Amino acid sequence: MKGQRVGVGVMVDSCQECECCEQDLENHCPEHVLTYNSPYKGTQTRGGYSDLIVVHQRYVLYFPNDLPLAAGAPLLCAGITVYSPMKYYGMTEPGKHLGVAGLGGLGHLAIKFGKAFGLKVTVISSSPNKEAEAIHNLGADSFILSSDPEKMKAATGTMDYIIDTIPAVHPLGPLLDLLKLNGKLAVVALPGGALQLPVFPLVMGRKLVGGSYFGGMKETQEMLDFCGKHNITADIELIKMNEINIAMERLSRGDVKYRFVINIWNTLSSSNI
Amino acid sequence: MKGQRVGVGVMVDSCQECECCEQDLENHCPEHVLTYNSPYKGTQTRGGYSDLIVVHQRYVLYFPNDLPLAAGAPLLCAGITVYSPMKYYGMTEPGKHLGVAGLGGLGHLAIKFGKAFGLKVTVISSSPNKEAEAIHNLGADSFILSSDPEKMKAATGTMDYIIDTIPAVHPLGPLLDLLKLNGKLAVVALPGGALQLPVFPLVMGRKLVGGSYFGGMKETQEMLDFCGKHNITADIELIKMNEINIAMERLSRGDVKYRFVINIWNTLSSSNI
Repeated sequence: MKGQRVGVGVMVDSCQECECCEQDLENHCPEHVLTYNSPYKGTQTRGGYSDLIVVHQRYVLYFPNDLPLAAGAPLLCAGITVYSPMKYYGMTEPGKHLGVAGLGGLGHLAIKFGKAFGLKVTVISSSPNKEAEAIHNLGADSFILSSDPEKMKAATGTMDYIIDTIPAVHPLGPLLDLLKLNGKLAVVALPGGALQLPVFPLVMGRKLVGGSYFGGMKETQEMLDFCGKHNITADIELIKMNEINIAMERLSRGDVKYRFVINIWNTLSSSNI
Repeated sequence: MKGQRVGVGVMVDSCQECECCEQDLENHCPEHVLTYNSPYKGTQTRGGYSDLIVVHQRYVLYFPNDLPLAAGAPLLCAGITVYSPMKYYGMTEPGKHLGVAGLGGLGHLAIKFGKAFGLKVTVISSSPNKEAEAIHNLGADSFILSSDPEKMKAATGTMDYIIDTIPAVHPLGPLLDLLKLNGKLAVVALPGGALQLPVFPLVMGRKLVGGSYFGGMKETQEMLDFCGKHNITADIELIKMNEINIAMERLSRGDVKYRFVINIWNTLSSSNI
């Protein structure tokens, strides 16, 4: 509708005909086209570095009026990436205990979704300086330093679900040990190698480890509407186009809380890009 | 009921009070007592090496009249071990494609349950001599030699479910590659070490790997009733008590199709055990 606030997420196209597209899982269509750095119709997609974008309406999302555009933008990628597995693997039962492994762009949103679903949320991180942040700024209920064996042991068998956002190769055993019987761990990051999966806790505790890769358009809209209703946005730093090189450098050091968002309005034409 | 045929499975006791016991998951009760080689009330359980057994009625199962006792006996352990994950992880939708990785005591029953649920069943094995057996004797629809890269590649993305019965450490990647989008792999064996779990197929294909550890009493009864209805029994070799040393030796070589069952009737007292 003319004048409606909209957003474009991770995808700008897919085949619209295959089994995945028919099931609203366009994100799994073998021909889906990512919004950034993908060959498309003779050119290349440039995502948030563009001031104009041409997209089929199927891949355009209504943006709830209550959500600020800039802080809402990362929901279209990081938001759906944590929301979708929570729905798919059934990690939304109020009163249950969610562990969020890794506190970055994905993890900080997993805390917010967890609280909105009525869960108890514990952050598991290797960075002691993230404890205050997790609890006081982001609303987590508790924090476990993953390098502290006593704290990890004390939390054994206390969690129903874990969202694993750790982007590096790591052993799954210590996380599986935190889960109760029938506990579920969803992997949403993409570390390069294979993870060590110990069989004993998996079998003896009937635990599961599942993956998830952002989400389809219908579910992304559902997620945005949920965020509008529960007032969920990302914590961001809004930058101008001519600040992106500094931002990229800081990103490589993990120095961002928690997503950079480029405001291209009036800044694209004046930059050197 | 007096005169009723009954069986005792993997467990002879549990606390009957904890959350697990209350949810008919006695197999996960921290105090469950295994039927064999477990300390119990000042003595030790001896399972199928006993001619008498004292068990609380909760752990005694009605044995369907249509099932032969000897060939039905392994259902109480191997049967529930493959039946329970098929139910829990939703691997029972008629017409779907089940892979059975490893063809031994668990695998041969997984084929039979798969066919009874109306699934297409493919055996994945490293032993070429099991192909004819799987298809002609056990009713599998097809067979893939896991060491044949072409056959493995041709089967990429064709399966909905896999029951992984391989008792040794093995990489999960080749099995995950056989699964479709949303495919599920249930691990039911207990190899000693950790398995290599590649993240990419898990995330990109929203696949899951879950464990399962036999089953509770209610579900074991359900499984036995299902076997009575569908005429499912194990393929066994019935031996006398004085043959067990030979059987143990053959077992260590994997030389059994597919379970030894000891007939203790009239053979226990005459043996040297």
